Amino acid sequence: MKNMKENIKTKSLGIFDSGIGGLTVVSQIIKKLPNENIVYFGDTARVPYGSKSEKVIIDYSLQIANFLVSKDIKMLVVACNTVSSVALDILSARFNVPVVGVIKPGAKAAALATKIKKVGVIGTRTTIRSDVYSKEIKSIDKDIFVISKPCPLFVPLVEEGWIDHPVTRMVAMEYLSSFIESGIDSLVLGCTHYPIIRNIIQETVGKNIKLIDSAESTAQEVANILKQNQIMNTSSRTPNYQYFVSDLPHQFDEISTRFLGRKLKNVKRIQLG
Amino acid sequence: MKNMKENIKTKSLGIFDSGIGGLTVVSQIIKKLPNENIVYFGDTARVPYGSKSEKVIIDYSLQIANFLVSKDIKMLVVACNTVSSVALDILSARFNVPVVGVIKPGAKAAALATKIKKVGVIGTRTTIRSDVYSKEIKSIDKDIFVISKPCPLFVPLVEEGWIDHPVTRMVAMEYLSSFIESGIDSLVLGCTHYPIIRNIIQETVGKNIKLIDSAESTAQEVANILKQNQIMNTSSRTPNYQYFVSDLPHQFDEISTRFLGRKLKNVKRIQLG
Repeated sequence: MKNMKENIKTKSLGIFDSGIGGLTVVSQIIKKLPNENIVYFGDTARVPYGSKSEKVIIDYSLQIANFLVSKDIKMLVVACNTVSSVALDILSARFNVPVVGVIKPGAKAAALATKIKKVGVIGTRTTIRSDVYSKEIKSIDKDIFVISKPCPLFVPLVEEGWIDHPVTRMVAMEYLSSFIESGIDSLVLGCTHYPIIRNIIQETVGKNIKLIDSAESTAQEVANILKQNQIMNTSSRTPNYQYFVSDLPHQFDEISTRFLGRKLKNVKRIQLG
Repeated sequence: MKNMKENIKTKSLGIFDSGIGGLTVVSQIIKKLPNENIVYFGDTARVPYGSKSEKVIIDYSLQIANFLVSKDIKMLVVACNTVSSVALDILSARFNVPVVGVIKPGAKAAALATKIKKVGVIGTRTTIRSDVYSKEIKSIDKDIFVISKPCPLFVPLVEEGWIDHPVTRMVAMEYLSSFIESGIDSLVLGCTHYPIIRNIIQETVGKNIKLIDSAESTAQEVANILKQNQIMNTSSRTPNYQYFVSDLPHQFDEISTRFLGRKLKNVKRIQLG
């Protein structure tokens, strides 16, 4: 039994997203768990998921999870809010490894952060329509009032590289001004792209509203589960990072570096489905 | 032989796009050729193509063309600038029906329109990088000077419905201001989404620059080829319109109506690949 645990420890974390946004989660996991091996899959050929139907998102997620599980992983991290919002239960039921999404950790952090029990949530259309952040937050404390708002243009703005740009400020004002008057004290960044424009979001809503980055909370949750199950990697070997994508579009290097905070090495293109 | 031609006449036009943008082309074809039957395919599950690699775009286009050809069509219309820019020759070589893209008709219209031999082209990253508009225009008149610019945010802005919105004006100014000083007299709308924000584009570049809508030019080209081949539908029956999509996302009805200019009936979801 002890040997089995030892074997599991050195297995990789399997992490996936609809594209490269999930690299903000990878970045936080590397920071918090520097010994862990990682296999990442980004569905760059079929990105974005935020405007697709639930059925298609579930189909694609199962294909990706099957691929990652075939890489003999010890845990599956769904580093995508859209997938976490519609497919997490199905993935948990289907596979024999712990499955962690980004919603529950973000919801928990928000419930802890709010002092006046008023929380805002922003994300893609699909995430917001699913209402899962609100359900999760209310399952922790039913008295918390949740206001949600889809912000579909933030993803293309980030991918265009308009990180500190007057248009992005204007879009942020259009999407977020209603939060300023609503009296929330915490705002969940419910999309892995949003931490990249964190500064503009913070400036727009003002410094009295605390931003909850679900990437950070998710890295903490992954650490907790590894610890509870005693399967944290304690090896002092340099960890192995493998990145798989379904397409290698132009500017991939430039954009992915922005998300991960470092250059991706060992990137392979594979086709699923 | 005469009977064969008669049979061909009543066959459908097969038209496809990466999503619903191609409906602006369908709308122009219906206007110009009201007797023709139409089978449309929109790859709404995998949209957008503009940020994908050439290889993936070619794979997806072959899947779609195979599907449409299986519907016994008499012509294939590629109502997508991105696909037309990278996959048209491959599709023409592969299938036994005339294949028409949106680039050549748009390029021809631009070459005819420019009086001072200075043309601008806007489109997605992939279309602009492929440089096909420039090549096509120069193959008609090598003395025409072509200035191209990718405008990646126009598609998500149109899909967000910000058709007459200060943010869209500001983005248009950011992308298009260089054209005002460049001295062009014609500007090709090299993406099927752009006619929807035609007014803002026209206001931004000023009324002295003529906008070339490749949807209009393509409908004219389709009419010419049907005429040349004597396969125009002369039946007085109400034409049959079938719409296939790979996904039926929320708000599909609302957005597709904006593109087609009328409500889509007879829409079916099918999965390719």
